[in-house]
Amino acid sequence: MTTTLITGGTVVTATGRSRADVLIDGETIAAVLAPGSLLLGADLASGVDRVIDATGKYVIPGGIDAHTHMQLPFGGTAASDTFETGTRAAAWGGTTTIIDFAVQSYGQRVFDGLAAWHEKAAGNCAIDYAFHQIIGDLNADSLQAMDGLLAEGVSSFKLFMAYPGVFYSDDAQILKAMQKSAETGLMTMMHAENGPAIDVLVGQLLAEGKTDPYYHGVARAWQLEEEATHRAIMLANLTGAPLYVVHVSAKQAVAQIATARDNGQNVFGETCPQYLYLSLEENLGAPGFEGAKWVCSTPLRSRAEGHQDHLWQSLRTNDLQLVSTDHCPFCMKGQKDLGLGDFSKIPNGIGSVEHRLDLLYQGVVTGRISLERWVEITSTTPARMFGLYGKKGVIQPGADADIVVYDPTGHTSIGYGTDEFGEPTGRSHHMNMDHSAWEGYEIDGHVDILLSRGKVVIAENSYLGAKGDGRFVKRSLSQYLI
Amino acid sequence: MTTTLITGGTVVTATGRSRADVLIDGETIAAVLAPGSLLLGADLASGVDRVIDATGKYVIPGGIDAHTHMQLPFGGTAASDTFETGTRAAAWGGTTTIIDFAVQSYGQRVFDGLAAWHEKAAGNCAIDYAFHQIIGDLNADSLQAMDGLLAEGVSSFKLFMAYPGVFYSDDAQILKAMQKSAETGLMTMMHAENGPAIDVLVGQLLAEGKTDPYYHGVARAWQLEEEATHRAIMLANLTGAPLYVVHVSAKQAVAQIATARDNGQNVFGETCPQYLYLSLEENLGAPGFEGAKWVCSTPLRSRAEGHQDHLWQSLRTNDLQLVSTDHCPFCMKGQKDLGLGDFSKIPNGIGSVEHRLDLLYQGVVTGRISLERWVEITSTTPARMFGLYGKKGVIQPGADADIVVYDPTGHTSIGYGTDEFGEPTGRSHHMNMDHSAWEGYEIDGHVDILLSRGKVVIAENSYLGAKGDGRFVKRSLSQYLI
Amino acid sequence: MTTTLITGGTVVTATGRSRADVLIDGETIAAVLAPGSLLLGADLASGVDRVIDATGKYVIPGGIDAHTHMQLPFGGTAASDTFETGTRAAAWGGTTTIIDFAVQSYGQRVFDGLAAWHEKAAGNCAIDYAFHQIIGDLNADSLQAMDGLLAEGVSSFKLFMAYPGVFYSDDAQILKAMQKSAETGLMTMMHAENGPAIDVLVGQLLAEGKTDPYYHGVARAWQLEEEATHRAIMLANLTGAPLYVVHVSAKQAVAQIATARDNGQNVFGETCPQYLYLSLEENLGAPGFEGAKWVCSTPLRSRAEGHQDHLWQSLRTNDLQLVSTDHCPFCMKGQKDLGLGDFSKIPNGIGSVEHRLDLLYQGVVTGRISLERWVEITSTTPARMFGLYGKKGVIQPGADADIVVYDPTGHTSIGYGTDEFGEPTGRSHHMNMDHSAWEGYEIDGHVDILLSRGKVVIAENSYLGAKGDGRFVKRSLSQYLI
Amino acid sequence: MTTTLITGGTVVTATGRSRADVLIDGETIAAVLAPGSLLLGADLASGVDRVIDATGKYVIPGGIDAHTHMQLPFGGTAASDTFETGTRAAAWGGTTTIIDFAVQSYGQRVFDGLAAWHEKAAGNCAIDYAFHQIIGDLNADSLQAMDGLLAEGVSSFKLFMAYPGVFYSDDAQILKAMQKSAETGLMTMMHAENGPAIDVLVGQLLAEGKTDPYYHGVARAWQLEEEATHRAIMLANLTGAPLYVVHVSAKQAVAQIATARDNGQNVFGETCPQYLYLSLEENLGAPGFEGAKWVCSTPLRSRAEGHQDHLWQSLRTNDLQLVSTDHCPFCMKGQKDLGLGDFSKIPNGIGSVEHRLDLLYQGVVTGRISLERWVEITSTTPARMFGLYGKKGVIQPGADADIVVYDPTGHTSIGYGTDEFGEPTGRSHHMNMDHSAWEGYEIDGHVDILLSRGKVVIAENSYLGAKGDGRFVKRSLSQYLI
Repeated sequence: MTTTLITGGTVVTATGRSRADVLIDGETIAAVLAPGSLLLGADLASGVDRVIDATGKYVIPGGIDAHTHMQLPFGGTAASDTFETGTRAAAWGGTTTIIDFAVQSYGQRVFDGLAAWHEKAAGNCAIDYAFHQIIGDLNADSLQAMDGLLAEGVSSFKLFMAYPGVFYSDDAQILKAMQKSAETGLMTMMHAENGPAIDVLVGQLLAEGKTDPYYHGVARAWQLEEEATHRAIMLANLTGAPLYVVHVSAKQAVAQIATARDNGQNVFGETCPQYLYLSLEENLGAPGFEGAKWVCSTPLRSRAEGHQDHLWQSLRTNDLQLVSTDHCPFCMKGQKDLGLGDFSKIPNGIGSVEHRLDLLYQGVVTGRISLERWVEITSTTPARMFGLYGKKGVIQPGADADIVVYDPTGHTSIGYGTDEFGEPTGRSHHMNMDHSAWEGYEIDGHVDILLSRGKVVIAENSYLGAKGDGRFVKRSLSQYLI
Repeated sequence: MTTTLITGGTVVTATGRSRADVLIDGETIAAVLAPGSLLLGADLASGVDRVIDATGKYVIPGGIDAHTHMQLPFGGTAASDTFETGTRAAAWGGTTTIIDFAVQSYGQRVFDGLAAWHEKAAGNCAIDYAFHQIIGDLNADSLQAMDGLLAEGVSSFKLFMAYPGVFYSDDAQILKAMQKSAETGLMTMMHAENGPAIDVLVGQLLAEGKTDPYYHGVARAWQLEEEATHRAIMLANLTGAPLYVVHVSAKQAVAQIATARDNGQNVFGETCPQYLYLSLEENLGAPGFEGAKWVCSTPLRSRAEGHQDHLWQSLRTNDLQLVSTDHCPFCMKGQKDLGLGDFSKIPNGIGSVEHRLDLLYQGVVTGRISLERWVEITSTTPARMFGLYGKKGVIQPGADADIVVYDPTGHTSIGYGTDEFGEPTGRSHHMNMDHSAWEGYEIDGHVDILLSRGKVVIAENSYLGAKGDGRFVKRSLSQYLI
Repeated sequence: MTTTLITGGTVVTATGRSRADVLIDGETIAAVLAPGSLLLGADLASGVDRVIDATGKYVIPGGIDAHTHMQLPFGGTAASDTFETGTRAAAWGGTTTIIDFAVQSYGQRVFDGLAAWHEKAAGNCAIDYAFHQIIGDLNADSLQAMDGLLAEGVSSFKLFMAYPGVFYSDDAQILKAMQKSAETGLMTMMHAENGPAIDVLVGQLLAEGKTDPYYHGVARAWQLEEEATHRAIMLANLTGAPLYVVHVSAKQAVAQIATARDNGQNVFGETCPQYLYLSLEENLGAPGFEGAKWVCSTPLRSRAEGHQDHLWQSLRTNDLQLVSTDHCPFCMKGQKDLGLGDFSKIPNGIGSVEHRLDLLYQGVVTGRISLERWVEITSTTPARMFGLYGKKGVIQPGADADIVVYDPTGHTSIGYGTDEFGEPTGRSHHMNMDHSAWEGYEIDGHVDILLSRGKVVIAENSYLGAKGDGRFVKRSLSQYLI
Repeated sequence: MTTTLITGGTVVTATGRSRADVLIDGETIAAVLAPGSLLLGADLASGVDRVIDATGKYVIPGGIDAHTHMQLPFGGTAASDTFETGTRAAAWGGTTTIIDFAVQSYGQRVFDGLAAWHEKAAGNCAIDYAFHQIIGDLNADSLQAMDGLLAEGVSSFKLFMAYPGVFYSDDAQILKAMQKSAETGLMTMMHAENGPAIDVLVGQLLAEGKTDPYYHGVARAWQLEEEATHRAIMLANLTGAPLYVVHVSAKQAVAQIATARDNGQNVFGETCPQYLYLSLEENLGAPGFEGAKWVCSTPLRSRAEGHQDHLWQSLRTNDLQLVSTDHCPFCMKGQKDLGLGDFSKIPNGIGSVEHRLDLLYQGVVTGRISLERWVEITSTTPARMFGLYGKKGVIQPGADADIVVYDPTGHTSIGYGTDEFGEPTGRSHHMNMDHSAWEGYEIDGHVDILLSRGKVVIAENSYLGAKGDGRFVKRSLSQYLI
């Protein structure tokens, strides 16, 4: 087994930073050492196979993106990243683990859905991966199946209060699932938007000829996110289920989550980079059909109403606990354009799996969050929240050597290779998309080196990994509850 | 320099636990290693001076008690623990650092007060110590002196909204001090009780012949803590000062702090073991003069009103950030009994410096908080909050080797050596008190070994240290803000 | 036309009380006069047909019960009071107007439902009556029909978030109805309980053999009332609809309403006497099947949790605006006993139409509310809320002479004629029920005289009216909004 | 005695409106009658001395301004309106009663202060007047004197948390006064601003050369109003005192009051026209020294922060209960200009006693409040709040004939006679001021006729009254509590 020593860097954890060297033995971290790597007189550097010089750089646990949708079927098409392309892009951006959502479709059995997901991913991933389970058909059989999820390494399931006729669960179903959640400890994840009400508004807007992408944001009003969030919280209160609200975008929904936590409930919330940076006015409201790039649900919110600033603040005060991407990419050509003339037919999703760490690091640069909080919300808390901590989310002996060397003096220019006229932009990304939702974003930092279980996957701006490097990781119950 | 290896234990941090060995080189942690202590083929255990077997035990960063008052003059007497006796007792209980309050008395210059405190502590302490600065006379000279505090390693100061005529600052003074706090980054610590109002109630109760210790709790009504807490928060809001509210005991005060944080303010709160366990009815209301044992300010609160449960919950949800003791011991004989027939003359204070880790560990046993949260609120957060982190509060290379080996299968019986009839109780403590506020408390855990900067101070139920082992530690600004 | 003069009494309004005489000309109040009834030298008393001496008594506008269900089909039976028996009982208790709920059943057209209700009531009532419209099948046809309701004198409609398969509307339907409400000004009335979730709990409880009436209260947990209340409020926020929440029983639901009003929404709430006085523990939890007497929805709440006290307080502070009865009586024999062995089959409802004024007057006696507030919440606000004010709810020239002379020195003993062994109790009521939900309640006041549109209907403990005295009253839009 | 009949108008009360005639016998209302004034066949109109035709107009109870400061000594000068000029101006504007603040100065005995105030007012007033008592020196003697206030017809007293060295009470004094308030039922009125903190900011701003009127608003930050409001509420909570917060201007202070009421406390708040219409930016920030016109305390608030809209909303939802003027006029020349170069020397006060009804009626026109709410907040609630109801604040038999005939088709142009260049503006007012704080405001309504105890004081745009018409009115305890 290869031994590696990362020297000279600053190891950053969720609680602080320190100058330390990291010794890796094969796939695992063997020791964290005082800088200089002299141990009882021995110079470790001379004994290892490989030395990585991290002088002047941050040594951080690899990112964990707890919310991705690789090759998800949606609206008659499928998310454009496969597990191969998506996890490779993730690696480029400093992420060493994704937790993707296995889907039980309506009429399908839960474990058949899970098996199908394993099939998609196995042998294709550049980095490690785990699964949440979407329960798209909550019936007696599904409830029984949930008893077996933990044994499969799946310790969380997701329900949808949106998308009637597709993934939607009604309140009776949610109640039963939450009882199961309380009983088993599985985390209930919730897409909290009032789907039936949204569908009424969508129909009315289209009937009025309001078909542009902007109206996607109008139909999915903040009241309907706030409402569903509150409803999920009260059902969790009644049942005792732990609750994790995905892709929170409205400040009023944050307030509901904060109140629940102040009342002692185990309720958590994630947000995504798009809700921190982008807006209804500037993005969904872009001229013509361009807004389609940013059609996702929950939708981008109004900057005039102050949602973005409030979400940053909530990350700082821990009213929101972590940031995932909800990575669900679709190309403009052949996919997003299904919704030309009817915003409701635009596939919902934004591709960000490659940019999460960078975009949030920029929040460190601009003083929104601390360096430690950056590590916490991108790696340590996701690991704790979803039962990966110990192997993932931390640099400590025994943990998988999933490590990023991040250069605060580096620079990253985000974008797609060509502009709208086909001219090269000098930018690039590695997701399988024909555009970038983040075109033109400049980051004052850079992922220099990424190790996945001890193997150098990214270095010197090259991808050194191979399809199938990544393995499925079984998760235990959330470590974030009492 | 001595080298030490702690093997076989479970290292617990604020975010998780792992099986790991800890190598100490002199006063400092040199490495954290995968268990087995084989590094690149070398067996470290054979090369060190001393091996500590921690199998089946928790290896945690030494406790940091951020609120103590050794030999504090109060009400015509002085706290009965000297720096010598108090820090020795602290060590027995797993605490490796205290932050004591240097006092500027009325009429005194700030740095004279600080110098006097150095004089009391220097050469006497069993463990490391640092100082907060009480500003008891906030005038132009004091404001100027505050500019120099950080250079002295004192990064926080405390004001009192209580105790008119003693430490009391009025709102004009508080405003000016908070402006200085915002400007320098020094943390504003606040004793938040409306002193002038309390004094009215005290006078009225005494005039009515209500002189028992119980009325101490009546006079210091929760409304007057809630009010002062809110007032401090709004002055902090106006000035931009970071605010830390000491010894929070009323659930309504917690709500004010939680709201401020949800609004994005840098407002923090500590509570103390007495507010988590003891109550107005059962303790202050004990028959005769016995309640005097538990006279402290803020006072113990009513259990019927649910404060204790709410405080535990607030620790779990991080609405309160840490637990200190407010250690301020007085003997019943010759001290507390100054208040026989007049509760207002009872010296205010409870001695707990020895028991904080144990009492909170019992909260882990009973499911109130997680093991990780125990470490966080007793060590890691105090270190981060008060600019000690890196050297203290964490087990990582480069940190001071302040380490406790805690035995979850051990047992601790808290109490004083003799009962009220002079009969031996089979219990004991090491604080200089003629009684225990915690008589009869049983803890399902035990401090087995304590190292202070690499030196074994407690082992096999013996104190192996010496007066003067402890050094003054300079603190930097709080690491808990953005 | 008969002229009547009420002399010597104290006229009580929503804002104050004054000594004044009231002159009635036919069905209408002609004047309110300084006591003594001397006007420009003329002694009015000598010129009128009838003088009523109200010395020492309160002269108040007749009660308006804004929530009754006469002969409502429910659960395979029907409410036991007909319009004849129910309105007569109402008159005995000081109520001069009821607003009953016309029902559109599933599959029925709105106006057919309304017509059927007119048929039931016409020619049968002792006092005036008006209708709200239950929309039990919210479809395109119903939405169109709602445009015509105001012309029929029906200015409010009610939806149910409970009772799936019966009256239930889902959120899509509610949204559409609220848009219509915002457009037309019709008040949206809401039964706010999460029916689908309740049905799950009901099924589980029954499956566990928990079949007693007590479990009716367990299944209909406060969380499910709070949740639905919040949901209705947010849908009202989104649409701009005015919202009136019926039979609020949980203090947490009150808090949601109070918050909405503090935020400027036109949201209102009623409670009922049963929620102010009775409880889950004492009543629903009565031994054997006796609890069935108090099975109603929303259910009685736990006294230990403090709902009753909070509701009284909310009436005082106007966080709740009025008190109706939700009168829906069922006999124990042949009706309530349908639920022997299965609480879910117990017809939901309590009979109180006769006792509302008395029960609330007792709240004046005990200091819960003021005399003025009593008049406000039983008469003036119901009239304003539902578009009757001017004709009803006030003693002023031009108003219908619906007047009660209430004797604060009188006494009322509430109960049914015989006890459980068939022995006479010396008590009685006039509702068509074989028991009383209020057995044994003693009231320190008495309805002495009741006039309905100038006709004396109750006097000297006799009923002097006739079937058909009462007429249908058309209502205008709520006068309680801006 | 003269008899008067007001015919053809619409009588508006706090709860509704109706077509009715009003018969006045001497100073008192004798009857309210159905329109047409035919009573038992007799035509009243032919029998009275005077008939006032109110066709097409509103007949409302005369306004009650519960907060005025006639000829108040302040900052080395005195408010420019005497009781003579001020009450005459009030009459012009539809106000029939003022409640002025008698002042106990520091060092003065309470009843000496009250006597001095009687001396100023007696024989000089155009309309009736009553007194609140300012307690400017809360000592044992003052506390004793408070026991005698009610017998003098003074049922409320005012304390100041602002103005250290002048009217200021510290928290110990406030607590004692509130205990007296709870004991006697006297309403505690509070000027809620943190004076000591404000004085620090004032000194700092002046030292920085920020001397313009604008900085008056900067120094009196909303945080310091919110804080003091909360503090007063908690002291009231502790003591059980009823609390009335004067001149609320910050939306955050409103929130504190609303929360207190939702919690069941007897806490009330008034605002003033200036806080509803004017702003920090536009008025205090006017060029040069012009902002001095609008220097009052609490100060005008930022429109960008939304205070004005929130205050209107709070009036509608009853989170604030009434509107007074805090009339305290100073001329620019010789008074306001004392503060040239030092905003802290500008006498605090705005003159509005003449315009309150008109300015609020404009809120009816623009849909901010209902016609009924206008009557409620300008007359009925002030009467109930301060123990005048029955005689004042209502049109009912036995009440004083204080009546305004208000013409909704009339028009009122507010302003001062000449502009800044001495040119006539075609506008005028009747207050003794050399400018108008309301220059240019146009009102779509007009006070046509005002009767004070049956005497026509204003009619046909003429003042028909005489100095000394107004009498002192004794007040009873607040009728607004339970």
